[in-house]
Amino acid sequence: MTETDTTWQGITRDELGQAARNHGMHLEGLRYDVTPVGMHYLVIHFDIPAAQEATWTVAVDGLVERPLTLSMDDLRSRRSVTRPVTMECAGNGRALMPPRAESQPWLLEAVGNSEWTGTPLRPLIEEAGVRPEAIELVFTGADHGIQGEVEQDYQWGFSLADVLRDDVLLAYELNGIPLPPQHGYPVRLLVPDWYGMCSVKWLRRITAVAEPFDGFQLSSYRLRQDPDGPGEPVTKKAVRALMVPPGSTDFPARNRFVDAGPGHLSGRAWSGWGHIDRVEISIDGGRTWSDAELGPEPASPSSWRAWSFDWIATVGEHELLVRATDRAGNVQPLDAPWNHGGFMNNAVQRVDVLVR
Amino acid sequence: MTETDTTWQGITRDELGQAARNHGMHLEGLRYDVTPVGMHYLVIHFDIPAAQEATWTVAVDGLVERPLTLSMDDLRSRRSVTRPVTMECAGNGRALMPPRAESQPWLLEAVGNSEWTGTPLRPLIEEAGVRPEAIELVFTGADHGIQGEVEQDYQWGFSLADVLRDDVLLAYELNGIPLPPQHGYPVRLLVPDWYGMCSVKWLRRITAVAEPFDGFQLSSYRLRQDPDGPGEPVTKKAVRALMVPPGSTDFPARNRFVDAGPGHLSGRAWSGWGHIDRVEISIDGGRTWSDAELGPEPASPSSWRAWSFDWIATVGEHELLVRATDRAGNVQPLDAPWNHGGFMNNAVQRVDVLVR
Repeated sequence: MTETDTTWQGITRDELGQAARNHGMHLEGLRYDVTPVGMHYLVIHFDIPAAQEATWTVAVDGLVERPLTLSMDDLRSRRSVTRPVTMECAGNGRALMPPRAESQPWLLEAVGNSEWTGTPLRPLIEEAGVRPEAIELVFTGADHGIQGEVEQDYQWGFSLADVLRDDVLLAYELNGIPLPPQHGYPVRLLVPDWYGMCSVKWLRRITAVAEPFDGFQLSSYRLRQDPDGPGEPVTKKAVRALMVPPGSTDFPARNRFVDAGPGHLSGRAWSGWGHIDRVEISIDGGRTWSDAELGPEPASPSSWRAWSFDWIATVGEHELLVRATDRAGNVQPLDAPWNHGGFMNNAVQRVDVLVR
Repeated sequence: MTETDTTWQGITRDELGQAARNHGMHLEGLRYDVTPVGMHYLVIHFDIPAAQEATWTVAVDGLVERPLTLSMDDLRSRRSVTRPVTMECAGNGRALMPPRAESQPWLLEAVGNSEWTGTPLRPLIEEAGVRPEAIELVFTGADHGIQGEVEQDYQWGFSLADVLRDDVLLAYELNGIPLPPQHGYPVRLLVPDWYGMCSVKWLRRITAVAEPFDGFQLSSYRLRQDPDGPGEPVTKKAVRALMVPPGSTDFPARNRFVDAGPGHLSGRAWSGWGHIDRVEISIDGGRTWSDAELGPEPASPSSWRAWSFDWIATVGEHELLVRATDRAGNVQPLDAPWNHGGFMNNAVQRVDVLVR
C-alpha cells in the first residue's frame, strides 16, 4: 500500500510557496457537473491585481481600424453567453513526471468545470476591424512580475484563426457570480479547448499585430526535450479521465480503503480535441480493461463528461486505472513523454486501493 | 535576496498531497475586508462528504431532556445572524518551524475573514435541555477516515462554558451563498475565537456527555514538547499580523521588489483574545519599530482589523517585520516555541524586499 517511489525529490520552498497559492480541485469535486466556486483550480503567475470594476477598461488597439476602450458596462451590455468549460492547467501531473520542472508542483488536481458568462470575442474584434496586415491578437493582463529574468505583464498571443472562433469569450462571471479576484476579476479571456495558461486573466488590452508574437509565456509553454530547442507549442487539452477517490482515506498519506463487495467508481473525462467517446477501467493494474458507462454527451465538447463503473471489490491490494478516448481517436498513454516544462502529462491515472 | 535557509527539508509526497487540497489564502487577500469566496483557507482532514441539503439532519442527543433532529429547513427557520469571523488554522506557519510535523505544510496563508450566516447554538441547546450531569458537548462531522491508526468521524468536544457563548453559530452560508461543499455544506459549527480545527464541518450530531471527551483530534491538537506528554490544548487564536505582499514579485520564487521612494504597507491583524490595539512595523530587520496606523475597530473582535504604514523605501535590501498586540496585552514573539504538531507559530512575519 505504501508508495515506494524512490524517484521522489523533496519539494523546494519555492515550489511550496506556489502550491500554497495555486489551488487544486479536490478530486471529490469530480462528482459535481459544475465545480462549486472555490473548488476550481487556480494558477496565478505573479500577484492578484487590485482591480476595480467601476474604472476597469479593456483596450482593443494596434492594427485595427477603430480602436476601442471598453468599460465593464460596455462589455456587460453586449450579447451575453453562459457556457460550461472544463479548464485544466498544462502543468497538471507535473510532480508525477520526474525530474521535475521547478514550477507549480501539481499532482492531478489542476482542473475544474465552471459555468462562465461573458460576451463573445469575435463580434467585438469585428467592430474594431482588424487591418489586413494583422496576423495575430495579443492579450495582456494586469498581473505583472518577473519570470526567467524578464519583467513582464502576463501576455498570450494567438493567430486570428485560433482565437476568433465562436466559443471564445471575454468572461466576467463564474457560476453566476462576478469573477472572484483570483479568477481574473473583472474580466478575463476564455479559450475553451486550450489549456488554461492562454485564458489571460485581469484582461486590459487586446492588440492586433503584424508579426508572430513571441512573449515570454508563449515561449515558455512549449514541449522541449532540449532546453534550448524550439519545442512544440502547448495548445489544446490532451484527453484525460480522472476518478472520484474511491472508498475512504487516511491523513496525511491519503491512501484509499474500500469495502469488499459491490462497488462503484465514477469520475469525469474531457479533451480539447472533441467529445469523449470511451472511458475504460482496469482493476488489475492495466492487464485487462473494461468499458465504463458514459453519462449524457454534454451540449458542447468543452464540458467534461461523466463516467461510472460497477465492480466487485475483492479483499486485497488493487491498482485501479482509468483512461479516456476522444472522438478524434486520441487515447491516454500509460506514460506521457517527459519534457522540460513538465507539461501535458496526461498519463492514465493509477489509484492504489486496499480492499478490506 | 535569495533565502539561505539551510534547515529546509524537502516536502514529502504526502505533504504535497495535502498542500494540493488545503487551499491557502493569497496574502493579497489581506487587502479585502471580507475575503472573497474561494480565497479563504481550507483544511479537509479526510474527504469532502457527498452531502444533500434536502435530507441532511443534525441530531442533538446524549444527556438532553428532549433529543432533537433538525432539518436544514428547521435550522434556517430559526433566528439568523450574520457575522464576520477571522478563521485561522492552528497549523499556520508550520512549515516555518523546523523540524516540521508531517501534516499540512502551511507557510503563512491559512487564514480568511468571511461573513458567516447561521443560527446561534445556545438557544437550540437550551431547547433540548442539557441534563445536570452533562459537562461537555461533542460535535461530530460527516467526514470519516483514519488518522494516527484510529478510524474516526471528525469530532471535537467543548466544555459547556466554552461553546454555549453568544457568538457560537451553526453556520449555513458564507458571504451570502450556501456553504460551498469544501467549507462544510450544508452546515458547520463556527466558534469565532478559537482556531479553525474545532469549527466542525458537515455537522451531523451534537451529543451531551458526562465525561471529558478525549477524541483523536482533541488529543492531537496539543502543544507537546514531549511526543508522549499530555501537552497543552490548542484553543484561542494567538495574536498575529500579516502584510499584503509589497511591490511586485517573480515566479516561482516570489521574492519581492519595491520601487524606491514613498511607499505604503498594509495588512490585517487579529487575535482570539480580544481587539487589536497596536501594530508595529520594522523596516530594518527588527532593530527599530514604529507604530502602524490602525483601521476602524471592527464591531466584534472576531473580525480582523486593518493596518497601514507609510515609509520611504531606500535602494537596497531590507527586511520588513510586522507585529501585533491585542487588548489582553499579548504581543507576537520574534520566535514561537517549537512543538511536535507545529501549532500556533505566530512569530512576527518577516518579508525580504529589494528596493530598486
